[in-house]
Amino acid sequence: MKKLLFHAEDLKDFMVRFFTRLEVPPEDAEIAADVLLSADLRGIDSHGIIRLNTYYGSRLRQKLINPRSPIQVIHETATTLALDGGNGVGQVVSYHAMQRCIEKAKQAGVAMVTVRNSNHYGIAGYYAMMALPHDMIGISYTNSQPLVAPTYGRRALLGTNPIAVAAPAGKERPFVLDMATSIVPIGRITVFEKAGKPIPEGWGIDHTGQITTNPTAVLQGGALMPLGGSDLMRGYKGYGLAMLVDIFCGVLAGAAFASKVGNPHEAQGPANVGHFFAAIQIDCFRPIAEFKQDMDELIRELKESPKAFGQKRIYIAGEKEFETAERYAREGIPLLENVVTSLRQAGDEIGVAFHYTPLGSLEISE
Amino acid sequence: MKKLLFHAEDLKDFMVRFFTRLEVPPEDAEIAADVLLSADLRGIDSHGIIRLNTYYGSRLRQKLINPRSPIQVIHETATTLALDGGNGVGQVVSYHAMQRCIEKAKQAGVAMVTVRNSNHYGIAGYYAMMALPHDMIGISYTNSQPLVAPTYGRRALLGTNPIAVAAPAGKERPFVLDMATSIVPIGRITVFEKAGKPIPEGWGIDHTGQITTNPTAVLQGGALMPLGGSDLMRGYKGYGLAMLVDIFCGVLAGAAFASKVGNPHEAQGPANVGHFFAAIQIDCFRPIAEFKQDMDELIRELKESPKAFGQKRIYIAGEKEFETAERYAREGIPLLENVVTSLRQAGDEIGVAFHYTPLGSLEISE
Repeated sequence: MKKLLFHAEDLKDFMVRFFTRLEVPPEDAEIAADVLLSADLRGIDSHGIIRLNTYYGSRLRQKLINPRSPIQVIHETATTLALDGGNGVGQVVSYHAMQRCIEKAKQAGVAMVTVRNSNHYGIAGYYAMMALPHDMIGISYTNSQPLVAPTYGRRALLGTNPIAVAAPAGKERPFVLDMATSIVPIGRITVFEKAGKPIPEGWGIDHTGQITTNPTAVLQGGALMPLGGSDLMRGYKGYGLAMLVDIFCGVLAGAAFASKVGNPHEAQGPANVGHFFAAIQIDCFRPIAEFKQDMDELIRELKESPKAFGQKRIYIAGEKEFETAERYAREGIPLLENVVTSLRQAGDEIGVAFHYTPLGSLEISE
Repeated sequence: MKKLLFHAEDLKDFMVRFFTRLEVPPEDAEIAADVLLSADLRGIDSHGIIRLNTYYGSRLRQKLINPRSPIQVIHETATTLALDGGNGVGQVVSYHAMQRCIEKAKQAGVAMVTVRNSNHYGIAGYYAMMALPHDMIGISYTNSQPLVAPTYGRRALLGTNPIAVAAPAGKERPFVLDMATSIVPIGRITVFEKAGKPIPEGWGIDHTGQITTNPTAVLQGGALMPLGGSDLMRGYKGYGLAMLVDIFCGVLAGAAFASKVGNPHEAQGPANVGHFFAAIQIDCFRPIAEFKQDMDELIRELKESPKAFGQKRIYIAGEKEFETAERYAREGIPLLENVVTSLRQAGDEIGVAFHYTPLGSLEISE
């Protein structure tokens, strides 16, 4: 297969034009495009431009997402804010929610914001990372459509409900944990199905609830397994984490939860996704310089520790993504040819030409 | 093997007398005993009375823990509190820290408290659950002595660093997630070693960093694996969670972190364990009645969903522990005979007789 390399700014330009054409206000289009681009830059391509039409464009055209993102305050205190996202663009709603969260934490030390009635918001880590320039710890959770079965169950009832937490360091790169609470996202299973390969044992179950290596059995009536996998490997902890995220994003926020969260591909009404954000001012606990110095020390101790047999390097959460982002910013973002074709088509359908010249191409094996 | 059943109040009485004898003030001895008893009641016996002498008594006698628990405020705002535990009894320090956290959250909506210079605090869930009667969500983390290797590493550098979150429900029992971020605690490995059985593949690594089924290889120079296990099963997420807990409890709190956290068995100086607590007033986000109703609905949807082949029941985090606690409160807490013998010895050494009559006994296979 071949991948074409595109300049990050070109992809962003396309996404801004695309969203704007679908009646998203220009400044909001800029935000939504930036969140999606950030996923592509960080190598999380499952949450990037590949979703532009399927998760957002098609729903905007069907009027299933409100392009104006009319956010409303439901309840506010000095430290908390409960928002209704007005069935707006998930990225736009979430960007504003996290920005308000950070402002409140500047005043109050810590702040938490819930959002109901929103949509798929892209990568959780983006919003957590917004706290970093303010010397804060940022937290971001979202629920999502049911894909994960509870331990001992067989029906997909919980989303891949990610947890993202970002903490600044000094000379080292920040810690950015951004993890689905399932073992793998559903897209990984699709990749194996397309390649005609069995999936590793433990990633998913079939419709009877038994672990299967057949990707089709997972996709058709089966479910993903929560982080940890089987009971023996303590998969109930991953299930507990997935439920925790649904408690914060669904129950606390007053959004949909469990089986009622809308699928961004298929839901015929509002998806009613819920989010949760928090920001913590570090120097309420400790001088920021001390915090950063100890973060550097913790990071170095882990990275410089002896490697397992056959391994060359120990990573910190987010480190690979920072390196990928630097490389892609320099060399271009690789997109599969068929992805480019579908972006071109999606653009043509609404009169937004994909008129960018690739910086180069790559032959890849998978 | 034989287990003897003891009345919960008898065990608590012994622990209160034990702590008091070691110069812990009576009201503090009551707290410490209650936390330990709560672990035994909930069936988390690795964190209960079995540790009375090894983790606490022996250190109190060696003056390695300050029985007066002289907590000091380092920095305080309306929403945050940074405490120094004065190298006191971990349970006492943590109980007061969480109580202050709840008081602050009552005023401010949300509150967070860090603690440095503390000791092993027992079960994380105890403090998270303190929020429940106040209609709050409670959060509790602690770091602990190094036992877990980072992904691709081979040296134990992170603790089993638990995460506990408790959220109230309406008619259903509360959600109480209380999970180590390793797959299993080190005590599980010891159980397999004593039984001469291999451990399941993935629980631990040997001194070269390779997965081993030999419990001795894990215990002697090896390490536990983080939740998820291998790279293929996304063990780096569990590693990320363990590091996250160390960032909150070690770095943010200004306590020891990574390899420097003292082992409650062996450390020859202050363990300098760190904790993190948070309390969230639910009705700042949503009326509590609505929250509880949706919690019940979420819990029921999960529990009533179809079971996997061969399974009869789906559990909610904390549910098994609540049931165990009800049963043990009724029938008595089972303790292995050799545990009773060592408690008796430990008591005799300081003049605190273990003069309780078992309610009965059990023959068990493991």
